[in-house]
Amino acid sequence: MSKIQRATSPELEAILGETFPVLDDGFIRVIDYMGNDQSIVQAARVSYGAGTKKVSEDRGLIRYLLRNNHTTPFEMAELKLHVKVPMDAWRQWIRHRTASVNEISSRYSIVTNTAQKTDPNEWRIQGTGNKQGSEGVLDPEIGKKLTQEEEIFQEYAKATYEGRIAKGVAREQARKDIPLCTYTEAYWKMDLHNLLHFLDLRMDPHAQQEIRSYADVIGNEIVAKWVPLTWESFEDYKINARGLTGLEDPLIGALINNQPENAVKLAISYGWLEQGKKGLKNNRERQEFEIKAKRWKLPIPW
Amino acid sequence: MSKIQRATSPELEAILGETFPVLDDGFIRVIDYMGNDQSIVQAARVSYGAGTKKVSEDRGLIRYLLRNNHTTPFEMAELKLHVKVPMDAWRQWIRHRTASVNEISSRYSIVTNTAQKTDPNEWRIQGTGNKQGSEGVLDPEIGKKLTQEEEIFQEYAKATYEGRIAKGVAREQARKDIPLCTYTEAYWKMDLHNLLHFLDLRMDPHAQQEIRSYADVIGNEIVAKWVPLTWESFEDYKINARGLTGLEDPLIGALINNQPENAVKLAISYGWLEQGKKGLKNNRERQEFEIKAKRWKLPIPW
Amino acid sequence: MSKIQRATSPELEAILGETFPVLDDGFIRVIDYMGNDQSIVQAARVSYGAGTKKVSEDRGLIRYLLRNNHTTPFEMAELKLHVKVPMDAWRQWIRHRTASVNEISSRYSIVTNTAQKTDPNEWRIQGTGNKQGSEGVLDPEIGKKLTQEEEIFQEYAKATYEGRIAKGVAREQARKDIPLCTYTEAYWKMDLHNLLHFLDLRMDPHAQQEIRSYADVIGNEIVAKWVPLTWESFEDYKINARGLTGLEDPLIGALINNQPENAVKLAISYGWLEQGKKGLKNNRERQEFEIKAKRWKLPIPW
Amino acid sequence: MSKIQRATSPELEAILGETFPVLDDGFIRVIDYMGNDQSIVQAARVSYGAGTKKVSEDRGLIRYLLRNNHTTPFEMAELKLHVKVPMDAWRQWIRHRTASVNEISSRYSIVTNTAQKTDPNEWRIQGTGNKQGSEGVLDPEIGKKLTQEEEIFQEYAKATYEGRIAKGVAREQARKDIPLCTYTEAYWKMDLHNLLHFLDLRMDPHAQQEIRSYADVIGNEIVAKWVPLTWESFEDYKINARGLTGLEDPLIGALINNQPENAVKLAISYGWLEQGKKGLKNNRERQEFEIKAKRWKLPIPW
Repeated sequence: MSKIQRATSPELEAILGETFPVLDDGFIRVIDYMGNDQSIVQAARVSYGAGTKKVSEDRGLIRYLLRNNHTTPFEMAELKLHVKVPMDAWRQWIRHRTASVNEISSRYSIVTNTAQKTDPNEWRIQGTGNKQGSEGVLDPEIGKKLTQEEEIFQEYAKATYEGRIAKGVAREQARKDIPLCTYTEAYWKMDLHNLLHFLDLRMDPHAQQEIRSYADVIGNEIVAKWVPLTWESFEDYKINARGLTGLEDPLIGALINNQPENAVKLAISYGWLEQGKKGLKNNRERQEFEIKAKRWKLPIPW
Repeated sequence: MSKIQRATSPELEAILGETFPVLDDGFIRVIDYMGNDQSIVQAARVSYGAGTKKVSEDRGLIRYLLRNNHTTPFEMAELKLHVKVPMDAWRQWIRHRTASVNEISSRYSIVTNTAQKTDPNEWRIQGTGNKQGSEGVLDPEIGKKLTQEEEIFQEYAKATYEGRIAKGVAREQARKDIPLCTYTEAYWKMDLHNLLHFLDLRMDPHAQQEIRSYADVIGNEIVAKWVPLTWESFEDYKINARGLTGLEDPLIGALINNQPENAVKLAISYGWLEQGKKGLKNNRERQEFEIKAKRWKLPIPW
Repeated sequence: MSKIQRATSPELEAILGETFPVLDDGFIRVIDYMGNDQSIVQAARVSYGAGTKKVSEDRGLIRYLLRNNHTTPFEMAELKLHVKVPMDAWRQWIRHRTASVNEISSRYSIVTNTAQKTDPNEWRIQGTGNKQGSEGVLDPEIGKKLTQEEEIFQEYAKATYEGRIAKGVAREQARKDIPLCTYTEAYWKMDLHNLLHFLDLRMDPHAQQEIRSYADVIGNEIVAKWVPLTWESFEDYKINARGLTGLEDPLIGALINNQPENAVKLAISYGWLEQGKKGLKNNRERQEFEIKAKRWKLPIPW
Repeated sequence: MSKIQRATSPELEAILGETFPVLDDGFIRVIDYMGNDQSIVQAARVSYGAGTKKVSEDRGLIRYLLRNNHTTPFEMAELKLHVKVPMDAWRQWIRHRTASVNEISSRYSIVTNTAQKTDPNEWRIQGTGNKQGSEGVLDPEIGKKLTQEEEIFQEYAKATYEGRIAKGVAREQARKDIPLCTYTEAYWKMDLHNLLHFLDLRMDPHAQQEIRSYADVIGNEIVAKWVPLTWESFEDYKINARGLTGLEDPLIGALINNQPENAVKLAISYGWLEQGKKGLKNNRERQEFEIKAKRWKLPIPW
């Protein structure tokens, strides 16, 4: 009989293997995992050695670790997923290099997955402020047309692929013209530290909607159940945290303490208040600062 | 004035920025690099410390390091490339997680790159022995038809993309149906140790032809010039090396020493000689062994 | 003739190979490097592709990248150092796993480096608040005694080592009892992104003084010259940045807007205001908040 | 109820938490793990996709993967150990950068671990052929003396450390002169692919005896039970494999086929047969080849 037991997470056990649908035909399933909140605590406590008293309760310790970027204990937990994702989103996903991955091979087997479809009311409008984002959706009438065209195109792509296969073209070459958003599948494994970093980037409002849909499920439906104390800390210290730069910090101080002239002087020294023909020139850092100041209802003195 | 100079490689300097064309519209260019053969030697020699005599000439040392998998000194050299690659091949390329990468963003800018085209005489036939490979090419008459269809398809795909852009669809979404083999561009940087591993896998005959075309250029046109001593060792000890498994080694010994009965006994103990209805059952390990034995003209005793 | 030139940094070239002394017998020397501020810009710009206008000046772009944690372009620059460091500090240093390292081998060559010595006025007192730190130094009279004892001990250790070597003990075993702070030497290479992370942790006031001495030299004497725009951004956005947690942010807002009752309610909901026998119980998060509030002279309402 | 179960390894479960003693006061304990042989198979099979038949039995597939360096499926299994190791060996151990590690902090807590002791019959003699190794042991009479000296020295070191602590020196500084072979403790986690690489290097006869003692336990007592099919393959294809370089391969062929003149010609072309004053000059590659040829009783024709 063994002297210890593996760490378990009952809430995660309960959803092991369950299919969480994402987009029109994608999914996420938890296949296996290692560790739980207590594993993180256990790894962190080894640092204190024999003879040192327990420094704090588990929740306090986890919060302390995450707040202070003591990240190594979070590497002690691992999550393994089975995912089905459009290659388009997968191209972003796979950029996270700290994962272990086994993806379905379309060299080895015939592509049977379809391409992701877009609903008439889901065609997003090109962003103007944020050049790499989108803002709102197109009129559903236009969307309907786009969706019809998409359907015809994807059928054409499928027929082209299948025509090649029928003529004996190698699978590795026949696939070359399938649409980028054709679904792929993979086993994907990552430790919790790197997973939180993945979620921080991919649950962000600037992340593309498709990958964000996956990240939201991983975060809110899976990690939140698996390691609830870590998840709470992550929300408090990463998702909802507000950073002030070394330039903004004294400026906020000046505004709080009713020193608008000092604030203006600082802003000038930063090069934030250059005049153009139509008033202040655009300056991204200044504008980011203004948003933060307004959130606290601090008056902008320029 | 500085006391030392940066390591340089005159032969690599001579091709800095030069465009090596690959496939119909791809390329590789060397943008920057760090280190040379002597940098590897220098890093290895630090191990011997002051007071220890030079143990061997540079060439001998590099060969010793590579032959014995003392890989860390090869991490001391870096190569940075600008590449243009079909996304299809790029999906394989990016699986090497030890690279630094900046890829063109089709969220940010409109896709102007075209899709890779296939010549009539380049349509490869699906492999049978190797399920993930190809064997020979299709009849050029069939190929001609496939190429025509490809051209029409790719033009249709382009028109579909441009139609979406014209209607105001966000670039990040409009791109979803572009063909997988549309070219992308990236800056890609890797250290020499990991680069050799990349080349070992991607110059291999089992690698898909498209990525092999790139790997061949990187290896033969670039690395061979940059670090000639390392390249020579790499060819001698990796590319041209022959491995014998722990099962094959004593078998080869038995055959060399005219002990066919011993060889048969060993093969039986490995489970290699099971009888099926039509003679020996297929056994991949035995077949791999037979190829090696025949190369040395050793008689197979079963 | 090549079409492009390698990226260079004249200010870094000027100190190539120069010995920066650290501690009593350690040093740092720049051996080689790759890239400069413009290499980062170049890698970032590939994302925008042909046809997209230059979005901003170099400085603005670098600041934008660093402020928003767009870290990959900073991987495009590399720094290679030759360092001499006490093994004690090296044990912390080597925990950064993204480096390439070749260290002198005391299996291979006889240890001639001495152990780091401590001046009488450098013996630090065990911290009480911060259990893993130090606060102030011991009385120089006590320090003098400690230094004398140290000297005798280190000479004894040296004699023990040399006695073993003289008796023919293998170097790999003879070294087993040398003091932990014996100097070692290494070539150490890291990309700029990971180097900034290293510096963020090791220039921090909580880092142990010995490794901080090295980090300060790398940051202020080397990186600041190599990539001045990046360094400026790093100071503004990392070194001098102030983070507010998701709990602190609304609390600061309440204090700014004269809503002390709301602030108290929030603090209670966080569990920050539990009463002990002698007033408020210790609560690390509350105390961290109070420090931030006081910096801006905001009144603490509990 | 969950739809699937976590992968388990009954043989590993049986020794979970068990203490395997190593050296005089070290140990290894398995704390947790993820995956088993079937997890590797499962990850590899995703590549074949729906509709593709099972290509081979599990054992055959694992052997195929390992033999052909298809390493990614082996990353799907993880092992977490609690280890107590002399810092001397730990310095080698920690060079494997793909591990997750939490080590006891001697900044945070007082060092109570002792230094590793050497038995009178364990003092190894400096190697001559292999400059970084050892050959045999010293006369036990000399060993007895060395052990006595070691004991006295280690007690002196302990008293020095404790004297500093008693005087109030910070723990982070007091530790600076403790002997290098003082035991440390850590939680250490690694995936199976990287673990096999670790074992390949550290179970090797050239590895230092101390770390080899640990690697032997991890390999033979733990991994062999955890993933028996993988372990068998690892022994057959890595531990017991014999590599022939691209130079050796045709030479072996010439010897097998009774072509000694061809063999000599090849050897000359390799620069292996240069004459010195006392016969053939030393040449490491030739000597390595001779060992391989003799193993198969092939006659050396020079």
